[in-house]
Amino acid sequence: MAFDPASLKYDANGLIPCIAQDHENGDVLMMAWMNADAVAQTLATGRVTYWSRSRAAFWVKGDTSGHVQHLVELRVDCDRDCLLVRVHQHGPACHTNRRSCFYTVVRDGAEVITMEPMTGAES
Amino acid sequence: MAFDPASLKYDANGLIPCIAQDHENGDVLMMAWMNADAVAQTLATGRVTYWSRSRAAFWVKGDTSGHVQHLVELRVDCDRDCLLVRVHQHGPACHTNRRSCFYTVVRDGAEVITMEPMTGAES
Repeated sequence: MAFDPASLKYDANGLIPCIAQDHENGDVLMMAWMNADAVAQTLATGRVTYWSRSRAAFWVKGDTSGHVQHLVELRVDCDRDCLLVRVHQHGPACHTNRRSCFYTVVRDGAEVITMEPMTGAES
Repeated sequence: MAFDPASLKYDANGLIPCIAQDHENGDVLMMAWMNADAVAQTLATGRVTYWSRSRAAFWVKGDTSGHVQHLVELRVDCDRDCLLVRVHQHGPACHTNRRSCFYTVVRDGAEVITMEPMTGAES
């Protein structure tokens, strides 16, 4: 069946959540939002492109930071209301310069930070 | 720092998206929603508990299906508006009886189903 971004289920703001997963090691890197045009652009360009809710603009991941996400594979979930992209992540995915946004673990009722910001050499 | 579910950022409906990841192999299994009480219950019971938007009720994963998710670890993202739970998943996570909800891959512009429903023996 041909894939049509319009066939996905978007929320009241026309957005769908998209989980980015590191293709190399399976780590979940981040979650952000796409609209139908961002989905289409991501597939057309191979550069993962979100919709920035705060800026109300396309967010071609890495255009400002250099921390590009190259699309390896896009998956749709059973309800068609969530996306999963497997990516080659260049450098950190998180704006805190950590590889993943999910660096805070709840352990025995306390928050524990488990990752340090990456240095330039690791990018 | 002590973890307080009230410190998370919920949407206008009081919900936060939660990604479930297979602790054994890193596969992303599903995404669903929690409210603050569901977060607290998940931590207190070790049984991953969502908020069902369609039923407007707590959804203790596996209570009906038997396909329980045992919590291994809960993580909070940098913006505190998304959760990641690493789980021991008993049987399929998806209501279609597939291990993961993300069984549809977009490949060369077409949707390709990459997983079959599990049989009872695999559960």
